[in-house]
Amino acid sequence: MIKVGIVGGTGYTGVELLRLLAAHPQVALQVITSRADAGIPVSQMFPSLRGFVDLPFIHPDEAHLEQCDLVFFATPNGIAMQQARALLDAGVRVIDLAADFRLQDIAAWEKWYGMSHACPDLVAEAVYGLPEVNRAQIRLARLVANPGCYPTAVQLGFIPLLEAGVIEPNNLIADAKSGVSGAGRKAEIATLFSEAADNFKAYGVAGHRHLPEIKQGLACVSGNPVGLTFVPHLTPMIRGIHATLYGRLAREVDLQALFEQRYANEPFVDVMAAGSHPETRSVRGANRCRIAVHRPQDGDTVVVLSVIDNLVKGAAGQAVQNMNIMFGLPESSALDNVPLLP
Amino acid sequence: MIKVGIVGGTGYTGVELLRLLAAHPQVALQVITSRADAGIPVSQMFPSLRGFVDLPFIHPDEAHLEQCDLVFFATPNGIAMQQARALLDAGVRVIDLAADFRLQDIAAWEKWYGMSHACPDLVAEAVYGLPEVNRAQIRLARLVANPGCYPTAVQLGFIPLLEAGVIEPNNLIADAKSGVSGAGRKAEIATLFSEAADNFKAYGVAGHRHLPEIKQGLACVSGNPVGLTFVPHLTPMIRGIHATLYGRLAREVDLQALFEQRYANEPFVDVMAAGSHPETRSVRGANRCRIAVHRPQDGDTVVVLSVIDNLVKGAAGQAVQNMNIMFGLPESSALDNVPLLP
Amino acid sequence: MIKVGIVGGTGYTGVELLRLLAAHPQVALQVITSRADAGIPVSQMFPSLRGFVDLPFIHPDEAHLEQCDLVFFATPNGIAMQQARALLDAGVRVIDLAADFRLQDIAAWEKWYGMSHACPDLVAEAVYGLPEVNRAQIRLARLVANPGCYPTAVQLGFIPLLEAGVIEPNNLIADAKSGVSGAGRKAEIATLFSEAADNFKAYGVAGHRHLPEIKQGLACVSGNPVGLTFVPHLTPMIRGIHATLYGRLAREVDLQALFEQRYANEPFVDVMAAGSHPETRSVRGANRCRIAVHRPQDGDTVVVLSVIDNLVKGAAGQAVQNMNIMFGLPESSALDNVPLLP
Amino acid sequence: MIKVGIVGGTGYTGVELLRLLAAHPQVALQVITSRADAGIPVSQMFPSLRGFVDLPFIHPDEAHLEQCDLVFFATPNGIAMQQARALLDAGVRVIDLAADFRLQDIAAWEKWYGMSHACPDLVAEAVYGLPEVNRAQIRLARLVANPGCYPTAVQLGFIPLLEAGVIEPNNLIADAKSGVSGAGRKAEIATLFSEAADNFKAYGVAGHRHLPEIKQGLACVSGNPVGLTFVPHLTPMIRGIHATLYGRLAREVDLQALFEQRYANEPFVDVMAAGSHPETRSVRGANRCRIAVHRPQDGDTVVVLSVIDNLVKGAAGQAVQNMNIMFGLPESSALDNVPLLP
Repeated sequence: MIKVGIVGGTGYTGVELLRLLAAHPQVALQVITSRADAGIPVSQMFPSLRGFVDLPFIHPDEAHLEQCDLVFFATPNGIAMQQARALLDAGVRVIDLAADFRLQDIAAWEKWYGMSHACPDLVAEAVYGLPEVNRAQIRLARLVANPGCYPTAVQLGFIPLLEAGVIEPNNLIADAKSGVSGAGRKAEIATLFSEAADNFKAYGVAGHRHLPEIKQGLACVSGNPVGLTFVPHLTPMIRGIHATLYGRLAREVDLQALFEQRYANEPFVDVMAAGSHPETRSVRGANRCRIAVHRPQDGDTVVVLSVIDNLVKGAAGQAVQNMNIMFGLPESSALDNVPLLP
Repeated sequence: MIKVGIVGGTGYTGVELLRLLAAHPQVALQVITSRADAGIPVSQMFPSLRGFVDLPFIHPDEAHLEQCDLVFFATPNGIAMQQARALLDAGVRVIDLAADFRLQDIAAWEKWYGMSHACPDLVAEAVYGLPEVNRAQIRLARLVANPGCYPTAVQLGFIPLLEAGVIEPNNLIADAKSGVSGAGRKAEIATLFSEAADNFKAYGVAGHRHLPEIKQGLACVSGNPVGLTFVPHLTPMIRGIHATLYGRLAREVDLQALFEQRYANEPFVDVMAAGSHPETRSVRGANRCRIAVHRPQDGDTVVVLSVIDNLVKGAAGQAVQNMNIMFGLPESSALDNVPLLP
Repeated sequence: MIKVGIVGGTGYTGVELLRLLAAHPQVALQVITSRADAGIPVSQMFPSLRGFVDLPFIHPDEAHLEQCDLVFFATPNGIAMQQARALLDAGVRVIDLAADFRLQDIAAWEKWYGMSHACPDLVAEAVYGLPEVNRAQIRLARLVANPGCYPTAVQLGFIPLLEAGVIEPNNLIADAKSGVSGAGRKAEIATLFSEAADNFKAYGVAGHRHLPEIKQGLACVSGNPVGLTFVPHLTPMIRGIHATLYGRLAREVDLQALFEQRYANEPFVDVMAAGSHPETRSVRGANRCRIAVHRPQDGDTVVVLSVIDNLVKGAAGQAVQNMNIMFGLPESSALDNVPLLP
Repeated sequence: MIKVGIVGGTGYTGVELLRLLAAHPQVALQVITSRADAGIPVSQMFPSLRGFVDLPFIHPDEAHLEQCDLVFFATPNGIAMQQARALLDAGVRVIDLAADFRLQDIAAWEKWYGMSHACPDLVAEAVYGLPEVNRAQIRLARLVANPGCYPTAVQLGFIPLLEAGVIEPNNLIADAKSGVSGAGRKAEIATLFSEAADNFKAYGVAGHRHLPEIKQGLACVSGNPVGLTFVPHLTPMIRGIHATLYGRLAREVDLQALFEQRYANEPFVDVMAAGSHPETRSVRGANRCRIAVHRPQDGDTVVVLSVIDNLVKGAAGQAVQNMNIMFGLPESSALDNVPLLP
């Protein structure tokens, strides 16, 4: 059994990690920390976990995380980078679900996240945890930077096209729509029910923190820098991201075959039949990305539709997938549940 | 392995049965019928099942249901009663998720459901599939009448009070609220998104088909006829029933202890701490009923709050629970998933 | 023109007052205060008001409210009672949309609201602003206590029955369901979209502040104290309250005629045909209460269904109705818009 | 008073027309037809109209539409073209809210709409009812083709850029998101609450009927054919369209000034401050388009955000605006209500 700790268990990625890990046959959940809610039973805050998780939240100072085999950080940005080195030194492996280790360019990270980085050298060691690209490195990693939710949906949609060099890399458009849980479990007016329901809006058009993360990942598979316009939107649903991706074809290719071949051996990427329109609910609660590729009116523009559950393949599920790879477990352990529809 | 067939797999209870059975270690899904959609792959209609269910819908005439060990009817009312006898005669056990075998009073059934009953004698044999009341009979049953969604939530809330005789049985009130999936997957204007969203209404106040079913069940545990006012409401959510139950106290009793003792050994009924307010989402996707009991202002009125997922404990999950009991399997096989929250 | 000021314009009742008053032909909106957002244009916070309201929020200290003819308090509880006397002394009339002047029993108010009352003598003077009961007093009032949202829906449903003495007053049940805007525009986790959407729950079963307000009002029309069990619920919609009311018939009566006669001359109470089920969306955005009365199965229990828009007839609209009465204007000025459906 | 008839009053554009016309000081509503629901009071189907509309639905054969001054067609495609000539011959002016007269290219119309056109010559006479482009022609028109909902939002966003020639016209992208009411009030499974809620999907990527309409309009203002990729999506809200538009800058320009000048005199187009993100709810229930223009990261891509209420500026409101223009009334008569927020 793998002894697992979770730092920051009171947010949506925290409770989602608990949902998945509670069903994992190889995981012994040791400790869940919360500074503000120490002492409260986890299942009191999240009654869905009654009967599954009997632990209380523990104050970080009393958590003895160094006794774990693996620690997940489900914390705000800037926490994991403070604690990762001590854990790694103690032989604990770390998966950060926040952004601390995602950008290799430290200056860019500091600009977008508005703080100094506490351990730039660990960034160099960290592996970006997108298994469809970095599976081999993840297997050996001590420290994994779990991708953001938008970056997962957008990269998985563009990768086949950029790897094969069939679209112009300097003029990509990613129009992405997220459910409200992507904003986290924070007391804020903008994500109140009465503000977000029956409403649709774009946000962060001038610049969103996931932009450099996506560009880094796409440049990596493309072999060259990419030009990307990324517009995120808030849509009135709890879970789900739908990325609508646009690229200009640089040469003729069988798009459907390209996507099917690229993901033929990927357990969690499902290329749907030509002409399909994947729905976010078709992956609700599941660690899966469904993709369809279109070429409307036989023109020069490729349209890729890519959907994930932002809390699963976009966060906690991908983190468990990374854990499974790191510890040599079957990659789909605890990730094989059927999506909840309707 | 239990060979299972499903008649009528295109509704919400059908797809929910498939979701649960796909994960059942002792079930071999043999056949799913649909008259209108025969030939279409199940996973084309329900993309959430891609990778889990590879069968197409089969026309009923070609289904060979008699080769199954168990057949679920996830059909409109009036279908199962046409086909049950032939299946039973062939040694197949039957669970009907519709209402054909729920009411022992044939005349009442014919009045409420507006048709003649095709096999009154089988009604007498049928066992009402509420495990918390009839577990022993279910174990031996050939034919199980799976309870309605409202009746499950309402009965589980009133049973401890009526069995113990602590409330007046002639003046019960059940104010129940259901998510829209309870109306089924039928093309109707009243349940369109633009009709049901951002809206709340009562319906069927003059009389709802679940009224006689609830009264029958409560009379049975009470030992006497009961007087019940039942008002169902439609609330803008997909899944979930919240029953708010009112009774007049007939004598002093420790209500919390009464409920905890009644359900101490029930795997799927969770009595919450005194003062709790169960939320429907705390059971979303799970075969669980959560209950809290209140006595506001220390008055004579008991208020019971009872929540279920109408498609799971209120339909498909309870059907699988009944199957597990009938076939001597662990009662929670395929029913042990954590609710999806948020 | 009536010179109007609004104290506390950043909440949902504030923006709703602005929506209504912007269209009022006899109102000159003078000032809107906000301590936290002073200086910001109102239409920047609420873009729906662009082109209709050109004022910025003003700090209370600079508001010169004493120059108004009428001041609305759309503030949290406990603010109006601090400022009402000075305004009244300056000849300004006051309508408080919060609870400061609703309960005549000061001790009860202090218990339920957890603070000392700043001006008990003004409570005695204040008129409870339910026009269907107190129209004559409202006309002469200097200080109006605008009713709560639940109390409006519940009282309008029970009043005909209690005034006529046709139900037992000691055993009333009000099962009420509110949209989330009833909780206000406050940064709180419990009313986040991801918490409140696709979910249903009761709250405050042990006791809710609207309980004594409803009991006071019903006792007044009944002529005797009433026994009431009041259970509020949160339902995933933005606007709307649906009250389902239960009473025991004390004598035979033509219920439909009773309701129709009681409200025959009321411009904002609509008694629907026998057998109707009013929907909350049928009053969305409008100052209207729609009511239907039922006697299920011809039994002893009367069921009344009463719906309002909690922000209009349950708050800002009723306040404007009171203003119209106080200033001798046509009662429906600025309140005659058609509900928004769908 | 203008005598107005409505053909097809049982859909969402029909009830929305009724909501607006009921408040119009110059309109006398004469007749509302429905083949299926003849005889039923309008306010029985739409209780929101109780007290505002006293008419029953009339069978088309008994409607005497030729006695009206103006007839609105709120019908499915293919109806208005059957009846328009007789009405025009009788001196009645016609506004078609469906698509029969929107495309000047008859062959294209017949391909996209799958039927023969009944009166191609009237198409040539019809004026496309986008007042921001064709106000002068609308004033004189006998027959107005009211624009589609997506075409309104998309055209208003692109027009300033294309008229000024500042973007490349051959590579436009319109990623549009619509509330579910855009699909109409038809009994269909795909738009059931339980299908459309908590879900997001694209549809019609291969080709949508609004594509040729948008291209026609943009070619007209551009002076040249345009290349457009149009991807519509369904988002779980009742009302609202959000169009996110992408173009490649062809030369430097002050984008904000360009938009502000273009719409300076337009009563129903609101250019928001630079950096804004218009929300659909900010126009809920109102005949208004709000627009913001962005140039992310100072790159070559212009992003325009354009929101409307699909049932108002995208349908019934624009039709009333056209009527006001045609009859020389103030353009904002009955269209000056404040949007409903929250």
